[in-house]
Amino acid sequence: MGGDEAPRAVVAGAVEASRRGVPVVLVGDHDRIAPLLPRASGVEIVHAPDAVAMGDEAATVRRRADVSIRVAMRLVERGEATGVVSCGHTGAVVVAAALDLGILDGVERPAIATLLPRADGGRLVLLDAGANVDCRPELLACFALLGAAYAEQLGVEDPRVGLLSIGEEDSKGNAQVRASLPLLRALPLRVVGNVEPGAAMMGACDVLVCDGFVGNVLLKAAEGAVGVVVQMLREEISRRPSARLGAWLIEGALRRFRRRVAWDVQGGALLLGTRGVVVVGHGRANPRAVAAAIQLAADASSAGLVTALRDKLGSRAGIA
Amino acid sequence: MGGDEAPRAVVAGAVEASRRGVPVVLVGDHDRIAPLLPRASGVEIVHAPDAVAMGDEAATVRRRADVSIRVAMRLVERGEATGVVSCGHTGAVVVAAALDLGILDGVERPAIATLLPRADGGRLVLLDAGANVDCRPELLACFALLGAAYAEQLGVEDPRVGLLSIGEEDSKGNAQVRASLPLLRALPLRVVGNVEPGAAMMGACDVLVCDGFVGNVLLKAAEGAVGVVVQMLREEISRRPSARLGAWLIEGALRRFRRRVAWDVQGGALLLGTRGVVVVGHGRANPRAVAAAIQLAADASSAGLVTALRDKLGSRAGIA
Repeated sequence: MGGDEAPRAVVAGAVEASRRGVPVVLVGDHDRIAPLLPRASGVEIVHAPDAVAMGDEAATVRRRADVSIRVAMRLVERGEATGVVSCGHTGAVVVAAALDLGILDGVERPAIATLLPRADGGRLVLLDAGANVDCRPELLACFALLGAAYAEQLGVEDPRVGLLSIGEEDSKGNAQVRASLPLLRALPLRVVGNVEPGAAMMGACDVLVCDGFVGNVLLKAAEGAVGVVVQMLREEISRRPSARLGAWLIEGALRRFRRRVAWDVQGGALLLGTRGVVVVGHGRANPRAVAAAIQLAADASSAGLVTALRDKLGSRAGIA
Repeated sequence: MGGDEAPRAVVAGAVEASRRGVPVVLVGDHDRIAPLLPRASGVEIVHAPDAVAMGDEAATVRRRADVSIRVAMRLVERGEATGVVSCGHTGAVVVAAALDLGILDGVERPAIATLLPRADGGRLVLLDAGANVDCRPELLACFALLGAAYAEQLGVEDPRVGLLSIGEEDSKGNAQVRASLPLLRALPLRVVGNVEPGAAMMGACDVLVCDGFVGNVLLKAAEGAVGVVVQMLREEISRRPSARLGAWLIEGALRRFRRRVAWDVQGGALLLGTRGVVVVGHGRANPRAVAAAIQLAADASSAGLVTALRDKLGSRAGIA
């Protein structure tokens, strides 16, 4: 029931994912979902009488056990589904996940981890990308552990962990950053210190830790800037016939380029630290993005992400 | 004496600006600057025995009256210069400006205002872009007044003021944003509410208000993302001969495009709210960027920016 074009975009994305072989259960208002489903789509519906609106306070979810996101979480908790995908209210997803799935030992609060393409060809794990908008330093240390474990799970050996700041010297940053850096340095991790957004995107670290408000701003600023740049490039190209011919010749390059910079090609980001796979999709997700988010959840389940994170956190806690 | 390549890049930029007709005084270590100046450059040197290092705490500038940035501020205060440009320690520039120039009535703390290109062809005034890393809600309200006055000075009538957040609903954002929105709404300004980074870049507002840490992250994330994107586009184009031919044909378009997205083409950003023109340059500024920053300061002086801001703030304070 979440997202700007709900439930239409979500239903269409679920149908697409189902066609690709991922079994999908839609949780929400049966009467609104059923008419949108094609015959024999293979997509199940589990009815939930209530849904979170974008303007709701996340905390209200605590006393609304029948809201669709909580019904979905309980399907995973009971083993009837292996992961949850939502394009709705991020705060509500986090509260519901903590309530109904629970969080891993050693994790104080779950965090949203987004993968950004880096100029050096690698991927940057950015967290928290929006689950926790006001973080104490201890939370940032927790995100560092989660992010490093996720990067390892992605195949990065001894990942370099950076703390997002606006200068690389230890003295740079706001009060939160200055208080967090010593805590990160005390962890059994390879902490490279304060890292600026541009340096991180160039490849200065594998994991970039920040509070959820700042991380979400970073992500949306990067998306926004790329959008503006692509639009300006199109405008400049359309001005002259020779440039249009040139654009035709580089079409393949532009297409590959757009695929590489499509930050939302994954359709969503993983919520790390909960006892089950949770993917937070973009509120503006189209059907293709919804299908990609569902695939991300399915892949994370098959790869045993939750177990791997639990084991890695456990062993680090032992060392720390 | 400030910036990664100081004093070389700063001296070369000053010489370039001077050639273009802007009289420049360099403030710093005479023995290090003089050998870098060509004969008859027309650039003066005022010796300052001390300089702020990037790792210094900004507050140390209070008791270091002979540090180059403070000597430069006093030249303006005494009317021997009309503006200060620095590519050095931003925090030190802000402290020195407040100490030696003073701040305008009704301004609690000065803020750095950066202009970003918008997809709709307009310009976005983003502030604070890095002067104040921990802001109370009252400071954000002060930035809204400063930013609106600056936008008006740039020719925008009744500028739309947005508060940077991670969702447009009033309930979205961190504690700082939620506490600030009512204060902004109470000002005699056209406040459009919470605005996400991407929406602002598309044209949802003329002035985007945020705290200096978040604003600096936004700016550097946008710069970084554009840098990654341009590099990826180059890589894709260089893969195939036909794409290289195409790239040759769109060369003019790419050049205009790069000019439009060169966020640092201005070389610096204005510090608003002080009793004198102050431009904060990029730490990585090359000579061309330094010359552009000097030109920005000269233009702001000629346009009477400080007087205009003072008058606009005064009249708004009367209404408020």
